[in-house]
Amino acid sequence: MMRKYKAMDHIFNPKSVAIIGASQNPNKVGHIIMQNYFNVGFSGRLYPVNVKSDKNILGLKVYKKIGDIKRSVDLAVIAIPAEYVPKALEECGKAKVKSAIVVSGGFSEVGKDSLQDELSEMANKYSMPVLGPNCLGVMDLRSRVDTMFLPTFKLDKPNIGGVGFVSQSGAVGSTVLDMISHEGFGLSKFVSYGNATVIDEVDILEHLMRDKYTKVVLFYMEGVKRGREFIEVVKRFTQVKPIVISKGGVTPQGSIAAHSHTASLAGSAGAYKAVARQFGMIWATDLEDLLYFGKIFETQRLCTGKRVAIITNGGGTAVLATDALYLNNLELAKMSEESKTILKKVMPSIVNVRMPLDMAGDADDRRFSAALDVVTKDKNVDMIMVISLFQTPGADSRVAATLIQYKSQTDKPMVVVSPGGNYAQVHNQMMESSGLPVYSSPTTAARSLSALVEYSNYRKTTADLYKK
Amino acid sequence: MMRKYKAMDHIFNPKSVAIIGASQNPNKVGHIIMQNYFNVGFSGRLYPVNVKSDKNILGLKVYKKIGDIKRSVDLAVIAIPAEYVPKALEECGKAKVKSAIVVSGGFSEVGKDSLQDELSEMANKYSMPVLGPNCLGVMDLRSRVDTMFLPTFKLDKPNIGGVGFVSQSGAVGSTVLDMISHEGFGLSKFVSYGNATVIDEVDILEHLMRDKYTKVVLFYMEGVKRGREFIEVVKRFTQVKPIVISKGGVTPQGSIAAHSHTASLAGSAGAYKAVARQFGMIWATDLEDLLYFGKIFETQRLCTGKRVAIITNGGGTAVLATDALYLNNLELAKMSEESKTILKKVMPSIVNVRMPLDMAGDADDRRFSAALDVVTKDKNVDMIMVISLFQTPGADSRVAATLIQYKSQTDKPMVVVSPGGNYAQVHNQMMESSGLPVYSSPTTAARSLSALVEYSNYRKTTADLYKK
Repeated sequence: MMRKYKAMDHIFNPKSVAIIGASQNPNKVGHIIMQNYFNVGFSGRLYPVNVKSDKNILGLKVYKKIGDIKRSVDLAVIAIPAEYVPKALEECGKAKVKSAIVVSGGFSEVGKDSLQDELSEMANKYSMPVLGPNCLGVMDLRSRVDTMFLPTFKLDKPNIGGVGFVSQSGAVGSTVLDMISHEGFGLSKFVSYGNATVIDEVDILEHLMRDKYTKVVLFYMEGVKRGREFIEVVKRFTQVKPIVISKGGVTPQGSIAAHSHTASLAGSAGAYKAVARQFGMIWATDLEDLLYFGKIFETQRLCTGKRVAIITNGGGTAVLATDALYLNNLELAKMSEESKTILKKVMPSIVNVRMPLDMAGDADDRRFSAALDVVTKDKNVDMIMVISLFQTPGADSRVAATLIQYKSQTDKPMVVVSPGGNYAQVHNQMMESSGLPVYSSPTTAARSLSALVEYSNYRKTTADLYKK
Repeated sequence: MMRKYKAMDHIFNPKSVAIIGASQNPNKVGHIIMQNYFNVGFSGRLYPVNVKSDKNILGLKVYKKIGDIKRSVDLAVIAIPAEYVPKALEECGKAKVKSAIVVSGGFSEVGKDSLQDELSEMANKYSMPVLGPNCLGVMDLRSRVDTMFLPTFKLDKPNIGGVGFVSQSGAVGSTVLDMISHEGFGLSKFVSYGNATVIDEVDILEHLMRDKYTKVVLFYMEGVKRGREFIEVVKRFTQVKPIVISKGGVTPQGSIAAHSHTASLAGSAGAYKAVARQFGMIWATDLEDLLYFGKIFETQRLCTGKRVAIITNGGGTAVLATDALYLNNLELAKMSEESKTILKKVMPSIVNVRMPLDMAGDADDRRFSAALDVVTKDKNVDMIMVISLFQTPGADSRVAATLIQYKSQTDKPMVVVSPGGNYAQVHNQMMESSGLPVYSSPTTAARSLSALVEYSNYRKTTADLYKK
């Protein structure tokens, strides 16, 4: 049996790549993939392969077939009509190509099961790990790999970071990737795995579990191929790092739609959700949850409890945030008497020193700093939610810098709520790029803190279990 | 008894405004308010009043006291320390000023009930409608009025439109206003009413019910002063136009925080929510819901049923959208046989003609146009959700233009789902500014359609009730 997850190194970090179906036509998939490899600055060898062409493509010599390349090829990206794919894979196998991504569609998802079977047979015959078919492939900006065949001007490029994002659906994948990039948090690896005929969700998780750059995995799936093995790998995975999972097809009607899309047999909503939680996965009810939860897990440590300190420069939001805590199984922290004594000295008399701490609409960086100095040290506080309304007179770049500074000094998980337009968003990007997760409402912040508590508790409980 | 809601015309559309506490210091509230009146292009007369100053402010002559202005004043905006406010109101009363906004804080919200009582007495003595204290006042860009004392560079300016936004909390008010502006939908009037000692939520609703520009009211409240009258006005209001309501203090803990903030006695979560729905108000669970629901009510007609057609260029999102419909009490529409026959002719063979209609990742404007041509005419379709993933090769400005065009031709409510980064957002703004509400996930779109169904059903049921 091939160790697919190990062989996936060649997919994520190839030293040499052949593009089968490379094209001179800038609208063709085989051209866009070539172009993307150039755009991300791939430093390995790139070999365009096209049976019909003997011209150069983007300045590189074109090979008629993979066998003509007389040097070793780590990865073949295949972008040709479905009916020619099995033969191309056979040629790859004979040429000892180490791995392949089939981006072409036209297999099981349109009823052509036998064509997909042929593809699997070739992969098995040559022990070649194959991603796809019917997928976008991978993006790994550390190793400068991007096999996505979408025009680059249409997608924001992500930062390099710790979020691994796995999507069965290419459309959901590219869209969420674009959202991740726009939000400004960092990607370790992206995988769109399509019909999952050779490499499936189990292999991908095995690989990402071992990937030192990946701190959290966001997973959009429609169905599971190997249920038992999936649960086994998830159990081990969630002992090491979190998985946030979103599943399409959780209603009977959505399930029907899912079947025609990636030919997956979807289970029931309740069954999936229960399984997810039982094995430590965090359930995301929609794509936005993937983002909300993803950024807290990427940047924050596990928490020791669920008592949240709220610090704000807007009274109304203190009310909403307090509601949001209790609606999400969190608690409002009670400050120690010592903390209160200090705050009473440093806060102006209009500030009522208690939780939630409403520092009034004219709070500036010094007031935020004084409050954070106290709550980061208070043993009655497990986590911190700072609400900074940048619409108010005192909130400016110094406040953002203060929050970043205190985040770097504390082990307590800390999130920021900062809703608003351009002025707020400039500061939000500043904070996000320094590892401080920013939310646009107390509700989304509280739900994300709650996800952190859920996973932290799971880790604690299961660790205790293993100790006994 | 003064007819406060009528007198509020002077607050929203004054011909002459006195700023009591006007200042030459650009950091003072009394200066920022002056500056904002200039910035929005107020064309009425503006009178700075400052007891201490005899210099010009922003080129205008300063009056020592309101009585020195020998012409009529429609509105006095009062921005002086709390203890001087009752006296200033008395002088306004004697000078026959028609209305006042007290932006100053320092009344009941910090325990000074007797000072607030003095304020109310003055207002009653002179039958003067007073907004506040402890509020941001109003914004009405049609009449070029902006009493908010926040630096203008910190807030995006809204478009002129049909959303009336009422907030008890100034902080929540300015923040949501900034979010509304950034989202690109249009404001009719903004009111921050603070401690509500004279003009309260009942008066404001009475006024907005009669305001021809306001199509929907978004309401953030912490407590109700006059419960019975509030319900009476809501009953009449929701027969005419929708109210989306968000309430702070819906948990016991949040309620305690609310009490110290605007000195409101908050009721229980369940009681408020039940009352809201009983009288046709749409319940928003957080600030983001105010935005999501606000834009569908501003731009879309009431619906005739809950059968939603889904048209998409991304298969995975079709699955998520179908789930989202059923999780929000909506139904996936079944196309008529006639519709299917037409679509089978015009769609490429890879497109499976059924709902949800996945037109494949290479769908361009012609394919969107063909699909919309059919579903806008199909009698089995009540509403339309178009998912346009602008990351895909075929989706560009022509697709956005096509959606705008079909929206203008159909009576059926139509929403767009378009998640993503810069390229998507440029097109989202294009569509939003043409009255097409855009959402970043199928879930938020489905929840908004569901809110539209809920309100449409309420209107239908109560209309039937009144007929009998």
